[in-house]
Amino acid sequence: MSHTVIEDNEVDVVIAALRSDLSSFMEEWKAFFSRFHLIIVKDPDLEEDLQIPDGFDHDVYTKSDIDRVLGSTPTNIIFSGYSCRYFGYLMSRKKYIVSIDDDCFPTRDDKGWFVDAVTQHIDNLATPATPFFFNTLYDPYRKGVDFVRGYPFSLRNGVKCALSCGLWLNLADYDAPTQALKPELRNSRYVDAVLTVPSRTMMPMSGINVAFDREVVGPAFFPGLRLAGEGKLRWETMEDIWCGMCAKVVCDHLGLGVKTGLPYVWRKEGGEAIESLKKEWEGVKLMEEVVPFFQSVRLPRSAVTSEDCVLEIAGMVKEQLGPLSPTFARAADAMVEWVRLWKAVRS
Amino acid sequence: MSHTVIEDNEVDVVIAALRSDLSSFMEEWKAFFSRFHLIIVKDPDLEEDLQIPDGFDHDVYTKSDIDRVLGSTPTNIIFSGYSCRYFGYLMSRKKYIVSIDDDCFPTRDDKGWFVDAVTQHIDNLATPATPFFFNTLYDPYRKGVDFVRGYPFSLRNGVKCALSCGLWLNLADYDAPTQALKPELRNSRYVDAVLTVPSRTMMPMSGINVAFDREVVGPAFFPGLRLAGEGKLRWETMEDIWCGMCAKVVCDHLGLGVKTGLPYVWRKEGGEAIESLKKEWEGVKLMEEVVPFFQSVRLPRSAVTSEDCVLEIAGMVKEQLGPLSPTFARAADAMVEWVRLWKAVRS
Repeated sequence: MSHTVIEDNEVDVVIAALRSDLSSFMEEWKAFFSRFHLIIVKDPDLEEDLQIPDGFDHDVYTKSDIDRVLGSTPTNIIFSGYSCRYFGYLMSRKKYIVSIDDDCFPTRDDKGWFVDAVTQHIDNLATPATPFFFNTLYDPYRKGVDFVRGYPFSLRNGVKCALSCGLWLNLADYDAPTQALKPELRNSRYVDAVLTVPSRTMMPMSGINVAFDREVVGPAFFPGLRLAGEGKLRWETMEDIWCGMCAKVVCDHLGLGVKTGLPYVWRKEGGEAIESLKKEWEGVKLMEEVVPFFQSVRLPRSAVTSEDCVLEIAGMVKEQLGPLSPTFARAADAMVEWVRLWKAVRS
Repeated sequence: MSHTVIEDNEVDVVIAALRSDLSSFMEEWKAFFSRFHLIIVKDPDLEEDLQIPDGFDHDVYTKSDIDRVLGSTPTNIIFSGYSCRYFGYLMSRKKYIVSIDDDCFPTRDDKGWFVDAVTQHIDNLATPATPFFFNTLYDPYRKGVDFVRGYPFSLRNGVKCALSCGLWLNLADYDAPTQALKPELRNSRYVDAVLTVPSRTMMPMSGINVAFDREVVGPAFFPGLRLAGEGKLRWETMEDIWCGMCAKVVCDHLGLGVKTGLPYVWRKEGGEAIESLKKEWEGVKLMEEVVPFFQSVRLPRSAVTSEDCVLEIAGMVKEQLGPLSPTFARAADAMVEWVRLWKAVRS
């Protein structure tokens, strides 16, 4: 496939506001965000009014918008905490979504230049991915790189990239046990590479710094797996890991690509990991079942859209994982409800 | 698994001498090579005497050694040109092999320090690999890194790493068409990362800068696929790509890991790519069959050693690829002969 041209007006930057004062976050990102339309979703649990500086083209969604869209029917879809961003994905009318946590700031690359994370995500999505054979020099479409000797010419066109996963300097995205065990651990290595995660390889997608083609894989980005003791700290959540697995399976099935690597963001300090430890163990325990499950998922040929795929996966989750934990059974129900909601909002 | 301690006397550095004057090559590598035993294999087509500087613990093998080992029986194993290194793998009595082409020199990392390529390869082999789930922060065993949120704890021990593939700055390992099309293309990006190539993902292994556990996967490192017009330029060869595919399939089957990334070497200028173009097309054409073939190979449980695996693969090559090209049929025969030779030399 050829490179895609992505216009600024095809992109929504979605921000989950877990803090009321977004001033420093938005001011620091101003140079990179101001060309784009922003969707800010206020955590429905947050009481204070949002403080948003001037100079941005933005829509804000709050608890009342969420309640209106969800209606009065009981649902397993919960948009509170980090999951409020998914409401922005649901409301967006743009082809592409870029989403960055509100505790992340622009960082510098290994040459000392500020990283334009939005443009890097757009580049990742605009150039093809190569999921069927590994290029040892990483992304062959980057300037100064090509396919190495032995790379089949028939695979050099690549496939459409639907998902771009960025990384984190300073406080990396570790789980609570790792943070608690190594409180001083900070990521300082800027790895100047983008690579395609190979087909059928599963990876833990982080929602902290991510972008995707909403029209193609949007239905796979939903708040599905909610941990019992989930709070307002990233390491207490697993919903992004779960929907990343779904998205990867969907991409593999539909012949789409997933990239990881650049861009980096600078992630500020979090809370006390030790406090989160007792909550986190549920997520850690569940991952032992989640990874083999998603590695084994094979979708039928009749599944030709992301909606089809998510419903198929939901059925398998219900049947295979549901008996192991009520968290899985609820996730399966939430996935079915999400597809219904996605279609309803679109119609 | 835990980290392995690799002693200097467990490593052979194998050098294929395609040039008679090794002086500058060995002087530049002296600081990094001199702790190790060296095996230098002289290309049997090379007429001039080798020039090897003092100060190295080394053995030299020449055409007469090769002829003695091969004997008078007709064989498909040809040790000329770049393939002479495999004779060194055959003669080695050490557990580990590091092999670097004689047109490569030490390079500097992104901080300006000289890269100790041998030690980096040994580090890659001494620390576990993680082929079953992708860690987005790359090698989780490197200093300053860990497993990211969502990585199953049951997979954090990793598996034994059997193969370490390094990269190239300056002249990268491109094929002749790419070199001819982009004669100015040079690789200047130092990507400070080591990663495990995921299980069941195929990649084109380059023999330019490589290391492996000879005791475990040595039988998969053989001169098998010889192109009809193969000459003395890297981009005219495919034998390393072919045995890399075998080695990857063997590692996947035996539950071993393959890493790629660091170390880099500085690769000097090659010859005229345009001259090689008509020879290269055979290799390019063959790769269209080679990649899908190796992606489809599944070995039986009865194959429990590398020798078993290589013989199984040889049978599949003969049957599935043999009818497509005499090059494949000869490769299958060479693989069977290699395993016989490997066992004979060892007994």
